[in-house]
Amino acid sequence: MDKIQSTVTKIKKVDRVLLNKAQVRLDNLTKPQGSLGRLEEFARRMVAITESITPRTEHKVIFTMAGDHGVAAEGVSAFPSEVTQQMVNNFIAGGAGINVLARHVGAKVMVVDMGVAVDFEPAANLIIKKIAYGTKNIARGPAMSREEAKKTIEAGIDVFTEELHKHGVDIVGTGDMGIANTTASAAIICAVTGEEPSIIAGRGTGIDDSRLKLKIDVIKKALEINRPDPDDPLDLLAKVGGFEIGGIAGLILAAASSRTPVVVDGFISTAGALIATKFNPAVTDYMFMSHNSAEKGHLEALDFIGIEPILDLDMRLGEGTGAALAIGIIEASVKILTEMATFGEAGVSTRND
Amino acid sequence: MDKIQSTVTKIKKVDRVLLNKAQVRLDNLTKPQGSLGRLEEFARRMVAITESITPRTEHKVIFTMAGDHGVAAEGVSAFPSEVTQQMVNNFIAGGAGINVLARHVGAKVMVVDMGVAVDFEPAANLIIKKIAYGTKNIARGPAMSREEAKKTIEAGIDVFTEELHKHGVDIVGTGDMGIANTTASAAIICAVTGEEPSIIAGRGTGIDDSRLKLKIDVIKKALEINRPDPDDPLDLLAKVGGFEIGGIAGLILAAASSRTPVVVDGFISTAGALIATKFNPAVTDYMFMSHNSAEKGHLEALDFIGIEPILDLDMRLGEGTGAALAIGIIEASVKILTEMATFGEAGVSTRND
Repeated sequence: MDKIQSTVTKIKKVDRVLLNKAQVRLDNLTKPQGSLGRLEEFARRMVAITESITPRTEHKVIFTMAGDHGVAAEGVSAFPSEVTQQMVNNFIAGGAGINVLARHVGAKVMVVDMGVAVDFEPAANLIIKKIAYGTKNIARGPAMSREEAKKTIEAGIDVFTEELHKHGVDIVGTGDMGIANTTASAAIICAVTGEEPSIIAGRGTGIDDSRLKLKIDVIKKALEINRPDPDDPLDLLAKVGGFEIGGIAGLILAAASSRTPVVVDGFISTAGALIATKFNPAVTDYMFMSHNSAEKGHLEALDFIGIEPILDLDMRLGEGTGAALAIGIIEASVKILTEMATFGEAGVSTRND
Repeated sequence: MDKIQSTVTKIKKVDRVLLNKAQVRLDNLTKPQGSLGRLEEFARRMVAITESITPRTEHKVIFTMAGDHGVAAEGVSAFPSEVTQQMVNNFIAGGAGINVLARHVGAKVMVVDMGVAVDFEPAANLIIKKIAYGTKNIARGPAMSREEAKKTIEAGIDVFTEELHKHGVDIVGTGDMGIANTTASAAIICAVTGEEPSIIAGRGTGIDDSRLKLKIDVIKKALEINRPDPDDPLDLLAKVGGFEIGGIAGLILAAASSRTPVVVDGFISTAGALIATKFNPAVTDYMFMSHNSAEKGHLEALDFIGIEPILDLDMRLGEGTGAALAIGIIEASVKILTEMATFGEAGVSTRND
């Protein structure tokens, strides 16, 4: 059995009994039952995912996956393609938004070159898994070959597995960088949800009306030319995807297969998550959706996955920034479960009705 | 001039020029303009409030104000009144929800006895500002005298000022504990917004339908008997308020008067915030509303104040738990402003249109 198959078949739905077991513990803590709302939901899910009543959150890792996109040549982004490589260097140096927010929540950032157009100097926080020097232009043909799509998913599996074995991973966040990758992600979301590009495509880095019109046309063309099969995740990725998007899908599958909670960032990561669900729908049991991105069409994708996002702060930066903030909230929920006093311990009276 | 007046007159609207100055800095950081959404809004406001382009967030303090309520005798809560004092002891010992979440974001919890029915042993994290051993029953007359209402506000001012001078306060959160205090808070919110008790009153600690009906009737009666003047904050507090609610109002006024950002917790704290705005509407410039509580009527109160909440996690515990989580997010926004690299520093290209 190949690497993808062996990973995918290991993913089983979580044991519902554990959700109830966690709630019994939560209901015995010194607070009215259910009064911590969604924090209790997150804590329950953490217990069920990790199969532990005291889930660990010590090793927090965000993988920021980077790749270039041939479709950038169509003029779909407000920024030039070189920004992908420049931002990778910014991530390595620790000056980007994801570095700041990951530090804030005590998470490590690992940068993954999945397919940037240039080579990078080695760095301790950089992993090279380059499939190619950018994808091909999806407005004219497939982004990559089916074989490359397979390698992309495998690379995502590998980065997670290597980190898990070297340092341990208690909770993982996804992140992306790639000029024009909202175009590829929108194409994936359209293919999977059946929505029109005009409903899903957003302004990405902040394009104006005329570029948005162009972007919608490019996505339409990409879907028409390539006809991705929405139920064949490798075809979807090969036809209209991206190297970092496939890397994210592989990362999510690997995390779920080893019972590690995975916090999905925004629009691009959600496209990766959709691909992951096409390999095995049970993967959603291991996913937290970090936030409702300001990027148009994200909510449709979230609705399709069926998991309520944690935050709604009008963010649309990507990189894993939403995942970082959400990891902070999820860790708080675990501490509620593991650190709060029970009614008995604190000598607090229970309800009088 | 008395203490309240001198505090209130010091509160001036923030300088709008500083909001723009902060945005210029934010727009020069390595991210598409505006792509961090509300994090940028929080960072701008922090700059304008503190009059510093590098706001400090080192000293984070949450004041959890406790008081008992005579109206508990009407049977409006699911929990007995003794829970107020038991939970104060839980706060002091560090086992409550607020202790866990405050530790998570690096905030200190100071517990304030504003008017609990019993006396407490001294403790390092307990401040005694007891006005009386609980308020009177608002279903039968005023909660307290006008003189007591004044002392309550002054106590709130004092706890903040003492902490500021002793240790420094960079950002402050409000919190509450008091069995039956959603009843008093709902009465205040009804009086100020003009909404009916059936629209504002919620299930508090989790009361059933029959107790909720009783609670609505009790609030109606309290408003009819006491006829609080919505534009006279001391009358409002004296007629249908509570000691911890007045303490919170005083705390908010004191923070604003010394240009300290104040993060308002949930339903009860918002009632305190409404009272604070009646002393000086400019106080809202210093307030962050931490979350949209699951308690019915909170959104109406938030709409009246006109500040969008930061989180929406279906929480309704109070104590300052929403404020704690929101402080973590606001601190993240400040770090974005102060720690991210600029386009120039990182050698990243700007837009190509």
